[in-house]
Amino acid sequence: MIRDKCGVFGIFGARNAGALTYLGLYSLQHRGQESCGIVSANGGGFHSRMGMGLVNEVFSSQHDIQSLRGLAAIGHNRYSTTGSSSPDNIQPLVTNSSRGYIALGHNGNLTNYHLIKKDLEKKGSIFRTTSDTEVIMHLLARSRRDKIEDALAEALGQVIGAYSLTLLTPRQLVAARDPAGVRPLALGKRRKAWVVASESCAFDIIGAKYVRDIEPGEIIVIDKNGVKSRHLPKKPHSYCIFEFIYFSRPDSRIFGGTNVDKVRRRLGRALAKEHPVEADIIISVPDSSNTAALGYSEESRIPYDIGLIRNHYVGRTFIRPEQKIRDLDVKIKFNVVKGVVKNKRVVLVDDSLVRGTTSKKLVKMLRDAGAREVHLRLSSPPITNPCFYGIDMPTKKELIASRKSVEAIRRYLGADSVGYLSLERMLQMPSLPRGEGFCHACFSGRYPIRILDKNRNNHKNRCD
Amino acid sequence: MIRDKCGVFGIFGARNAGALTYLGLYSLQHRGQESCGIVSANGGGFHSRMGMGLVNEVFSSQHDIQSLRGLAAIGHNRYSTTGSSSPDNIQPLVTNSSRGYIALGHNGNLTNYHLIKKDLEKKGSIFRTTSDTEVIMHLLARSRRDKIEDALAEALGQVIGAYSLTLLTPRQLVAARDPAGVRPLALGKRRKAWVVASESCAFDIIGAKYVRDIEPGEIIVIDKNGVKSRHLPKKPHSYCIFEFIYFSRPDSRIFGGTNVDKVRRRLGRALAKEHPVEADIIISVPDSSNTAALGYSEESRIPYDIGLIRNHYVGRTFIRPEQKIRDLDVKIKFNVVKGVVKNKRVVLVDDSLVRGTTSKKLVKMLRDAGAREVHLRLSSPPITNPCFYGIDMPTKKELIASRKSVEAIRRYLGADSVGYLSLERMLQMPSLPRGEGFCHACFSGRYPIRILDKNRNNHKNRCD
Amino acid sequence: MIRDKCGVFGIFGARNAGALTYLGLYSLQHRGQESCGIVSANGGGFHSRMGMGLVNEVFSSQHDIQSLRGLAAIGHNRYSTTGSSSPDNIQPLVTNSSRGYIALGHNGNLTNYHLIKKDLEKKGSIFRTTSDTEVIMHLLARSRRDKIEDALAEALGQVIGAYSLTLLTPRQLVAARDPAGVRPLALGKRRKAWVVASESCAFDIIGAKYVRDIEPGEIIVIDKNGVKSRHLPKKPHSYCIFEFIYFSRPDSRIFGGTNVDKVRRRLGRALAKEHPVEADIIISVPDSSNTAALGYSEESRIPYDIGLIRNHYVGRTFIRPEQKIRDLDVKIKFNVVKGVVKNKRVVLVDDSLVRGTTSKKLVKMLRDAGAREVHLRLSSPPITNPCFYGIDMPTKKELIASRKSVEAIRRYLGADSVGYLSLERMLQMPSLPRGEGFCHACFSGRYPIRILDKNRNNHKNRCD
Amino acid sequence: MIRDKCGVFGIFGARNAGALTYLGLYSLQHRGQESCGIVSANGGGFHSRMGMGLVNEVFSSQHDIQSLRGLAAIGHNRYSTTGSSSPDNIQPLVTNSSRGYIALGHNGNLTNYHLIKKDLEKKGSIFRTTSDTEVIMHLLARSRRDKIEDALAEALGQVIGAYSLTLLTPRQLVAARDPAGVRPLALGKRRKAWVVASESCAFDIIGAKYVRDIEPGEIIVIDKNGVKSRHLPKKPHSYCIFEFIYFSRPDSRIFGGTNVDKVRRRLGRALAKEHPVEADIIISVPDSSNTAALGYSEESRIPYDIGLIRNHYVGRTFIRPEQKIRDLDVKIKFNVVKGVVKNKRVVLVDDSLVRGTTSKKLVKMLRDAGAREVHLRLSSPPITNPCFYGIDMPTKKELIASRKSVEAIRRYLGADSVGYLSLERMLQMPSLPRGEGFCHACFSGRYPIRILDKNRNNHKNRCD
Repeated sequence: MIRDKCGVFGIFGARNAGALTYLGLYSLQHRGQESCGIVSANGGGFHSRMGMGLVNEVFSSQHDIQSLRGLAAIGHNRYSTTGSSSPDNIQPLVTNSSRGYIALGHNGNLTNYHLIKKDLEKKGSIFRTTSDTEVIMHLLARSRRDKIEDALAEALGQVIGAYSLTLLTPRQLVAARDPAGVRPLALGKRRKAWVVASESCAFDIIGAKYVRDIEPGEIIVIDKNGVKSRHLPKKPHSYCIFEFIYFSRPDSRIFGGTNVDKVRRRLGRALAKEHPVEADIIISVPDSSNTAALGYSEESRIPYDIGLIRNHYVGRTFIRPEQKIRDLDVKIKFNVVKGVVKNKRVVLVDDSLVRGTTSKKLVKMLRDAGAREVHLRLSSPPITNPCFYGIDMPTKKELIASRKSVEAIRRYLGADSVGYLSLERMLQMPSLPRGEGFCHACFSGRYPIRILDKNRNNHKNRCD
Repeated sequence: MIRDKCGVFGIFGARNAGALTYLGLYSLQHRGQESCGIVSANGGGFHSRMGMGLVNEVFSSQHDIQSLRGLAAIGHNRYSTTGSSSPDNIQPLVTNSSRGYIALGHNGNLTNYHLIKKDLEKKGSIFRTTSDTEVIMHLLARSRRDKIEDALAEALGQVIGAYSLTLLTPRQLVAARDPAGVRPLALGKRRKAWVVASESCAFDIIGAKYVRDIEPGEIIVIDKNGVKSRHLPKKPHSYCIFEFIYFSRPDSRIFGGTNVDKVRRRLGRALAKEHPVEADIIISVPDSSNTAALGYSEESRIPYDIGLIRNHYVGRTFIRPEQKIRDLDVKIKFNVVKGVVKNKRVVLVDDSLVRGTTSKKLVKMLRDAGAREVHLRLSSPPITNPCFYGIDMPTKKELIASRKSVEAIRRYLGADSVGYLSLERMLQMPSLPRGEGFCHACFSGRYPIRILDKNRNNHKNRCD
Repeated sequence: MIRDKCGVFGIFGARNAGALTYLGLYSLQHRGQESCGIVSANGGGFHSRMGMGLVNEVFSSQHDIQSLRGLAAIGHNRYSTTGSSSPDNIQPLVTNSSRGYIALGHNGNLTNYHLIKKDLEKKGSIFRTTSDTEVIMHLLARSRRDKIEDALAEALGQVIGAYSLTLLTPRQLVAARDPAGVRPLALGKRRKAWVVASESCAFDIIGAKYVRDIEPGEIIVIDKNGVKSRHLPKKPHSYCIFEFIYFSRPDSRIFGGTNVDKVRRRLGRALAKEHPVEADIIISVPDSSNTAALGYSEESRIPYDIGLIRNHYVGRTFIRPEQKIRDLDVKIKFNVVKGVVKNKRVVLVDDSLVRGTTSKKLVKMLRDAGAREVHLRLSSPPITNPCFYGIDMPTKKELIASRKSVEAIRRYLGADSVGYLSLERMLQMPSLPRGEGFCHACFSGRYPIRILDKNRNNHKNRCD
Repeated sequence: MIRDKCGVFGIFGARNAGALTYLGLYSLQHRGQESCGIVSANGGGFHSRMGMGLVNEVFSSQHDIQSLRGLAAIGHNRYSTTGSSSPDNIQPLVTNSSRGYIALGHNGNLTNYHLIKKDLEKKGSIFRTTSDTEVIMHLLARSRRDKIEDALAEALGQVIGAYSLTLLTPRQLVAARDPAGVRPLALGKRRKAWVVASESCAFDIIGAKYVRDIEPGEIIVIDKNGVKSRHLPKKPHSYCIFEFIYFSRPDSRIFGGTNVDKVRRRLGRALAKEHPVEADIIISVPDSSNTAALGYSEESRIPYDIGLIRNHYVGRTFIRPEQKIRDLDVKIKFNVVKGVVKNKRVVLVDDSLVRGTTSKKLVKMLRDAGAREVHLRLSSPPITNPCFYGIDMPTKKELIASRKSVEAIRRYLGADSVGYLSLERMLQMPSLPRGEGFCHACFSGRYPIRILDKNRNNHKNRCD
């Protein structure tokens, strides 16, 4: 399963900035479930609360939220990685330097992290985390530029990679996005307050309006005098296509205000055109593939149905009793609605295939429930390469499509047919923002941003 | 919102009975989220673990499960009620008496609880809970009959109401269902082990097969010699129709093995026939109304779409920050997919209407998102009367349909039209078990089982 | 080590009854550390809070205490036993019966528990605990007498054993003590409020004054009309001498207002007279033997010194790492002050010897630290018999003095000499209440109260 | 009340280094109760566990300890300060730099922290804590010296103040002490393993032997090749006299292996000589003043007695119910043994007087219990100046002796007489290490080490 990435949120100019940030993080929970934190700025100083767990676990009393006083705040959801459960990596990261107190939250991944870190270490810097965020903090602290936006521009001029940042000083909210614009970051407004967030669903919950994207390469500074903007040198845009395919919530607008739901549906339609099949019903792997399945159904005129039920009570602490219950890992998440699939030719729509282990079990569960045929359709091309820009994927070797043909995959899964949306079709889809380029490296291997420390990227938390 | 009821589970003859019960309860989590417990029988004695919270919170380590040794076990999920968070009411209830150790889990409600309790008190009984379960325990203990099935028959002969019971002695698993069969209870088999559960979805997760229902009025005793059955005097059957409409999981089979999903879809189809409307899309209130909405879509040929996204991260401890964010209660659960509903004539399908407050807010959210028309369709008749058989509903006064006409409801909700499925249509639906009667008291006021202590039923936890 | 017994507390007529009970329980914490609970009476109803753990763990917020509204309350500390950590046994026990709501806290042990329980079971009673308290509740509920004091007298007329009770009804506080008066129970006054407690140290912390003991066999009822008293039939008194030797706090007054400290010091003096020894210093096993050691020092004119330091941070959850560190169990509790004992002839005063394992290790630690001689002196006679009246002792077989001579004990411990206070000397001590008898069954085997279910007493929690 | 300082521990060459460090920290718990942590070195990498709370709270399962694999480990107890409960300040601090991974635990206080920090900030350093430890880490990282001991010498050459350090690299254990030797640090041996600890009581619990002190100004490096030592430039020694008076455990040996207990007793004896009084009993404020009281008793020949009982159950979370119970703060910690003090002329021996509020209440409690006279004797001189070397004292203004004469203090406390040990007597005591100087700045105002940022020291956690 592909891991969620991080979510960032920031607000300036609201009396209840901490509470609004809490709600914003809650609506961005799908982007990271390992830990979360909020820092608020109360004139001279900061208030903060962070912890391991979901937003509603870390903030579990009114007091936790009310203590976040001040008119500005930033928040961060961090995704879950195996093993690296160190509280040291919880964000936002807060440091003190000659520039005073700064808090920083980051979504993305720097591809020259190791080079910069080595260089900083040579200059005598010490590191408490393995996160990109700390590298940016060091660069900021070493800048001689007075204004935060100039210093940040100088710092970001030295890093390569994907980043969507929110930064808080005692009196300013700063947001920045890498020149390629890999990860989304949007600007919104709620009454007199300015808001930034990874996805627009964080605006909806607090009643804010989407204004525009933070542009690729843009640095925005918000203080009591309003909004100032400056830009890093221009580069070609490379929006992460996977945000549309899987990561972002379908009710969000990202990358120039495009509805995720709309794109996802067109992916489904295109998939139906490219890989039609005679079948009785279309079902999805809930909930991430629902919209693509609807699109497939619309195009193919085969009825959409609900053939798999997802159990939402499976928490992070779910115990797997030791006895051997066949396919328990999948059964605790999904159950087949037998009456729906029995004696049917079923098209199972999923958004993507990583290792293929879950899909294999789902195909089997559908057959056990009486499905006559099972056709797997994937609303994205084969994933053949890892991501170095902030998505936690397995290594190339573990990616099933990097070492098996589609036919071999079909045999492995036990499906009657397997159909992937082709790269070309995917990129031809209408309703993507015009004139914009996408990053599709995980499908094509064409990495738009240089990877200067490839090895490291397989060993560290990519979302820091 | 209507509260979930309890879920019961029992197993006899499996080496990992405790672990299987844990999985069974997990799959029945939708029937009760306040507390849960498991008791296992290890030859002579019992092992137990219970607590407030979800199954994966109460059982949070391998040890919690492994300590439940023995070949038989019963488990219970209790639903959430406001205020009454006393650990004393957690089930299964374990007592010692002249009959030895007995554990009992119960789903339903006794309608002569107060009369029996008064009578028992006069005879010197003491009570530690406010639950029906304890009353049954007292009656069992006072029975002079040797065999547990005879004693249970004697005890149940004195109570009136709805009950689906699992009972454990150190060497027997007993299951019983009231003569009207109000709540579901099914018998399954997993290799050599016998299983009983409120719904068949609990069989699926452990790889057990549905065998048949525990019949209304049936008492089943399972021990190392196999299964014995006896019956209470026959009464007309009154299956709770609400189990089909809302409570049970769509992938379950209940009441004679009927697929919940199938019934729910036919309710949607019937609704479309009874209350057609010109519209562009059908959307559901996820997830409980998805299937009915699909049925409406099939019948009406208006496309089904996903217009509301449900946030599943809202836990029991979610903090509502004090500031006044409009309609926050609904926003933290649902968000509109604007691209889907904008400029559309929308049919919103829900399963039922209790107070109407959530629906009012949903209608408004849809309009704010640009829906041109909003037509509410309900796959059940107006709820005009409280349930006394185990469903936690508000008082009659709070039920919107008990005091407002459909037109008045429409005005209150701000919808363009409101259509309820009629009682007649609901009961005419094919695919309900033949020859069986339903309890539809909440719609019709015709209570099939006498209510001897009406007042009390509004003040106590009904699912004990 | 001998286990602590339970502590009871009750108050009537104070606006902050719950808070005062919290403080009272805190000062009685030495009598029980497993669990605790408070029930307050607020006119018609009860408020309660109970849990596993220390008083300051179970009541960990102002809210926990403030919610205990009402002018009367009772509280209970329960001692720690291995394995039986069932929350079901937490006291006070609250039940409902024809008599209404009653809460009951108990310190002691019934010696005909099994007989009564069997009899009650025959009559149809059910049991949720293994505690004496529940038996008394059943007897109360079955009494036909109207007044609580008459019903309690009738109930207590059927039980045999040791008990100090506090009982709460919505409008009354009741206290009772068994006719032999085995366990202490005192009456105090704080402004207009009446207080009852196991020991007078609970009066000190809340600024209450000791008034008198609840007399052996006395039942006291306190309500808004004042204090009423009645008596069970007279029996010879048998105060537990172990309360003086070990259990009660030295700053408490018990059994007719006798200072525990004074008695304990005279035990030490008598011990010095009976078993003098040439030595350089007297040291105690802190803290329970400090006063006896002071007494020994005064009489012998050998200086008292502090040779063992006790670590008070050892909590209930202390982890014993698996590696073999010699005598770690004792080392985590005690450390020798080497400079004090080096090259000295040391008298080690302890209050009693149960299994002897800890003493053996202490003797060795003292020798390792350079003590030239180690003489163990015990301020009580050899413990040869278990207690059936509320003290948790090992079985007779495990009591070292039941199977070894003093010389054999000396050899086992590795001490240069061992001296026990004789039974005669112990009972001759001045400053015990005049004309009162003591229970010294654990030393003499002469049990003043009949033991009707001997076996059971070794297998259940005796303090219920 | 004077706050405890931190405790440090380190071990190299033991298979169960993590477990032994856990036990060492447990025995040093009196030096810090806010938080604790352990870092172990497992060849190439580190394992760590840290948290807020006592040692037995942070390490609450076998797993917590067993995960600390490797042959070397360091541990740290941090003391409790109001407000600054940030997990960021938990030690040991772990960082990565050009020098690789380093963990550092520190007891003491740097007096030029602010100057160095400012300087480092100018050079571009960022800070995540307010602790001295981080400053030392930065200096280490900026050193160009290859060997850790040379780099540490270079770093420590730049700081001024008191420090006892343990430092861990993946393959080395390093310990260092400031040239004045203000805080204790000892070297011990357990079989083949080397151990360092703040006090020797940490050796006793694991069966290690005291070898010698880490000398003032010494840096020791322990690795698989053995122990290497080098020294910072010599300075006059200034051992903290307060370690003897109050901080260290009486069973510890510090500052050249001197028994704390012996010094403390001589302080008591000297006090008796300097401030004799006719009285009936000597009592102490338990437990810190017990030994001094014994010394006073020996010298004065007035009997020592136990007049105050300390309640050890008062945890960090003790709730103070809001009602006004007179002197509750003292009552929850101490109770008077009335039988001991009644009608007696009492000498109350305490180690020191800071604000005087507790003593005032104790004097009153003794009088209320019937003491005829109460003479307060303090085994140290008047505290007139704050400490800048690692002890958390109130500001000068709050120190009662900085603004009141002894007679005024007597009147404030309500004592019959007050006697302080004089500075001269204190320093003349035999049995202090010969030729060694002490820091007595808190009594004399003569600060042996320059204070370069005085103001700051009143506002930050001094033990970092």
